[in-house]
Amino acid sequence: MTQTVAGATDRTVARSFFDRHRDTLDRALTAIRERDYWSHYPEVPSGQIYGETANDDGRAAFEAYRGHAFPLVQPGTRGEVGAERSPFGFGLDIRYPGADLDVLLRSMLAALPAWRSAGAESRAGVCLEILERLNRRSFEMGHAVMHTTGQPFVMAFQAGGPHAQDRGLEAVAYAFAEMTRHAGRADWEKPQGKREPLRLSKTFRIVPRGLALVIGCNTFPTWNSYPGLFASLVTGNPVVVKPHRRAVLPLAITVAVAREVLAETGFDPNVVCLAVEGEDERLAPVLATRPEVRIVDFTGSSEFGQWLEQNARQALVYTEKSGVNSIVIDSTDDFEAMARNIGFSLSLYSGQMCTAPQNLLVPRDGISVGGERWTLEQVEEGLGGAVDQLLGDPARAVEVTGSIVNDGVLDRLERAPGLGRVVLGSRVIEHPQFPEATVRTPTLIAVDAADRQAYGREQFGPISFVVATDSTAHSLEILRTTALERGAITAAVYSTDDAVLVSAEEAAADAGVALSCNLTGNIWVNQSAAFSDFHATGANPAANACLTDGAFVADRFRIIESRRPTAPPIRSN
Amino acid sequence: MTQTVAGATDRTVARSFFDRHRDTLDRALTAIRERDYWSHYPEVPSGQIYGETANDDGRAAFEAYRGHAFPLVQPGTRGEVGAERSPFGFGLDIRYPGADLDVLLRSMLAALPAWRSAGAESRAGVCLEILERLNRRSFEMGHAVMHTTGQPFVMAFQAGGPHAQDRGLEAVAYAFAEMTRHAGRADWEKPQGKREPLRLSKTFRIVPRGLALVIGCNTFPTWNSYPGLFASLVTGNPVVVKPHRRAVLPLAITVAVAREVLAETGFDPNVVCLAVEGEDERLAPVLATRPEVRIVDFTGSSEFGQWLEQNARQALVYTEKSGVNSIVIDSTDDFEAMARNIGFSLSLYSGQMCTAPQNLLVPRDGISVGGERWTLEQVEEGLGGAVDQLLGDPARAVEVTGSIVNDGVLDRLERAPGLGRVVLGSRVIEHPQFPEATVRTPTLIAVDAADRQAYGREQFGPISFVVATDSTAHSLEILRTTALERGAITAAVYSTDDAVLVSAEEAAADAGVALSCNLTGNIWVNQSAAFSDFHATGANPAANACLTDGAFVADRFRIIESRRPTAPPIRSN
Repeated sequence: MTQTVAGATDRTVARSFFDRHRDTLDRALTAIRERDYWSHYPEVPSGQIYGETANDDGRAAFEAYRGHAFPLVQPGTRGEVGAERSPFGFGLDIRYPGADLDVLLRSMLAALPAWRSAGAESRAGVCLEILERLNRRSFEMGHAVMHTTGQPFVMAFQAGGPHAQDRGLEAVAYAFAEMTRHAGRADWEKPQGKREPLRLSKTFRIVPRGLALVIGCNTFPTWNSYPGLFASLVTGNPVVVKPHRRAVLPLAITVAVAREVLAETGFDPNVVCLAVEGEDERLAPVLATRPEVRIVDFTGSSEFGQWLEQNARQALVYTEKSGVNSIVIDSTDDFEAMARNIGFSLSLYSGQMCTAPQNLLVPRDGISVGGERWTLEQVEEGLGGAVDQLLGDPARAVEVTGSIVNDGVLDRLERAPGLGRVVLGSRVIEHPQFPEATVRTPTLIAVDAADRQAYGREQFGPISFVVATDSTAHSLEILRTTALERGAITAAVYSTDDAVLVSAEEAAADAGVALSCNLTGNIWVNQSAAFSDFHATGANPAANACLTDGAFVADRFRIIESRRPTAPPIRSN
Repeated sequence: MTQTVAGATDRTVARSFFDRHRDTLDRALTAIRERDYWSHYPEVPSGQIYGETANDDGRAAFEAYRGHAFPLVQPGTRGEVGAERSPFGFGLDIRYPGADLDVLLRSMLAALPAWRSAGAESRAGVCLEILERLNRRSFEMGHAVMHTTGQPFVMAFQAGGPHAQDRGLEAVAYAFAEMTRHAGRADWEKPQGKREPLRLSKTFRIVPRGLALVIGCNTFPTWNSYPGLFASLVTGNPVVVKPHRRAVLPLAITVAVAREVLAETGFDPNVVCLAVEGEDERLAPVLATRPEVRIVDFTGSSEFGQWLEQNARQALVYTEKSGVNSIVIDSTDDFEAMARNIGFSLSLYSGQMCTAPQNLLVPRDGISVGGERWTLEQVEEGLGGAVDQLLGDPARAVEVTGSIVNDGVLDRLERAPGLGRVVLGSRVIEHPQFPEATVRTPTLIAVDAADRQAYGREQFGPISFVVATDSTAHSLEILRTTALERGAITAAVYSTDDAVLVSAEEAAADAGVALSCNLTGNIWVNQSAAFSDFHATGANPAANACLTDGAFVADRFRIIESRRPTAPPIRSN
């Protein structure tokens, strides 16, 4: 009955990590309350911040993985798997341990009691140290993310490195706040009139759900995985990470770093494990329905997300799926700035983001630009022109678009002209550095609001629509209904009319989607900043949870109370 | 697109309620953090507290309902339903409006936007005023609960009145804390080196899930319903209350009070509605699977609770079902005090509580009492004797046991002797005041640990087992496994050995059940105090949620963000 706990020395190490990172955690706790701008991990890929040799070291570390077995020793290893190819046109040839799930999960369950008993502070200390070490390896991670997702390097560095780490820290902060919102113990004393009061000593213990599973996606392997990974981990649940078969390396590095820190602090490294599937395996449905797995975090297709929600009934299931994001264009004082902003949102990572806009909703009788009437055709041309201008120079263009992540996106793009009238065709660009990369510029298709079949479902990738609507009210109604039917993670509106902005806010509240109003300059609808912006809402089919709020963390542990009479013992009267 | 909101005057009233109850809310917010003893609504049914005529007025109010149509005017009323009988032996003959669900739910949806827009403080003001008015009617509620559940009056007053109100206030406090944990707006300013910083103004809006359904139970119609009712309501979700067909009146009074306060504050009273089923109807499965219903709170059978979890997939489902509660008896220094405490727990409301102990786990070679060895038979006799002594005087006995709530419990009790060796038989007691009441004393059945068929599932009502085990370690293992297999809401241990108490705490943590150690005197394992004890844990099959923690409230609303450039508008460079 008595459980193994980490020895005193080891716990001292975990505790010292907590002390070392205490200020960071406190600052993060303030940030999630105030939601002003804050970031802990520097987003600029600069040698002055990360060390003069950081970029070269990172690239060298990435190159050293290629063609070798990834250095990860886990229980239940059975053969080798892995067949990643860089979307920039070469094989990675990295081999990962195949998993005997029975042995792996048994080892993880054995690691649970000591991790549970370690307490919130020690676990937070370990998590923050893992994040800190991941941060130091952000260049390595940038190359790993680039060559598994097709993101351009700067984006891969930022989204895969510091931004993902910020999201991880945010999850640790939420979960820590939740675990410590109640006193750990209480002396309960109930008055009894003239008699002695009743007295009980109570303790409240944080108990994890069980094992947690994180299912990574192809496009944002770390950014979308870290919130669930760190939320489950810090609340006491050992985590098995199942990466997308095409984006294993970033999560393999993550797991290796976690296991290194766990081992140093005297915990069983099997508190965090990796499960990579072979080419013919599908591990996610198997793992997600194992009785030991009590929490699942998933990012990926709506189809499999819904399958998980329906079938992984023994677990809490947090899903981020897909959606149809809209921009309502009503009026503007600065068309050029608007078009440039939208054009960048369409082009960034070739629209392969769950936050990228798809439908640009424009009244068919045009919009007001600085008080002047512009026709729908002028609006279409202006938007197409902004994309063209942004992506005119191939060398600069590829640093915005990156590469197409997989053939599914390419097929869809090739079929896109059949969906309507082509306003802007997709172009092939040769990547100056990686001639085998699949670089494509976005296409813009004009359709009528009645052509719901074309624009009313997700067309993941660089495919967007200019949808001709009856009016801005009609545009808002389409925003609302597509979000409620198909999900949406972002929405935007451009208008110089305050009443329209208010109506847009009501439509967004109905649709359960976050709204960006009149964005110009260097802030884009597809960006969400940790500690300030909530990513997804859980209020429409695009996601059943939000990164990150109280609901995302509060159910990952339970509180088990023990109470006993306070000495001197209470006797019956 | 623009929504109706309560007029300025009306919102002023709601706001004044918030101001009036602000101190109460603040104190409750402190209590849920510190978890020391605190209660807002006085539990003593005394004229000095509630007014000299309160008892008579309450009884008169109850009597006035009998034989009449309950005064509740709702949309979509279709005929009259209701056939409650007091377990104390008479018909109530109260008629309630039957419900046309299409009309009812449509009216509730129409009430949603203004309730959503009112904001957390106005909604909290309304909820706290409802609770305050319910408190003033605690005697009336006591009689209503007594004559629908079979509880003795003092218990009905306390559990149905102030204790339920405390649980409602607790839920309001948790939800209020959750809604206000983030700033409502933020000025986000991201430095850009030497360039102008990026600046966004952000607002974060609390948006409810939709309609909420509360399904009441027969035995604790208010205590078990108020947490879900008030948690959903204060977070902006209109609530339809579906009482158990045998315990309608307490929730009809509750809904009437809520509608009165809503109307006074200018909100649509349809924010809270009642749905009573006819004798041949089953409204719960119909309501729980309506697309408009996005939250379900249920207390009742495991069978229907599991059905809801499986089938009400469009909603968040919070269930409290049933379980098998154990007491591990290892050793004691004061057998008499222990036996008296356990005996009271078995007898209170004839064991018809989800928190009542069922299995008393005792090593077959006996226990140590004050250092002396007592045989299993001595333990059995001592426990039986304590019950006999407590319930020796019929007039006092009925104030402990109340009446059997329904024929299902009676049937089970009559079959109980077949389950093992009868240590203590159930006796029939004639109620001095209500000769038609069905009063029964508890039965105690001796079984062997191998007879899992008998004691390993819930025997709801005054049926308990002395289970002969191999050892205390074996007892703890049975506690653990029955809780994990069948659920458990309470657990207790008696031991003079600290190592046993520590082992019991580990077993309870594994089993996800709250533990009471060495209770004697006037604190019983089946009692849980609002603001300090967590009721159920959500960590075993007895319940998927806990009353009340952050997880119980955090998902009932979502946060919808809107962001726009801060003036002066950001221009592209």
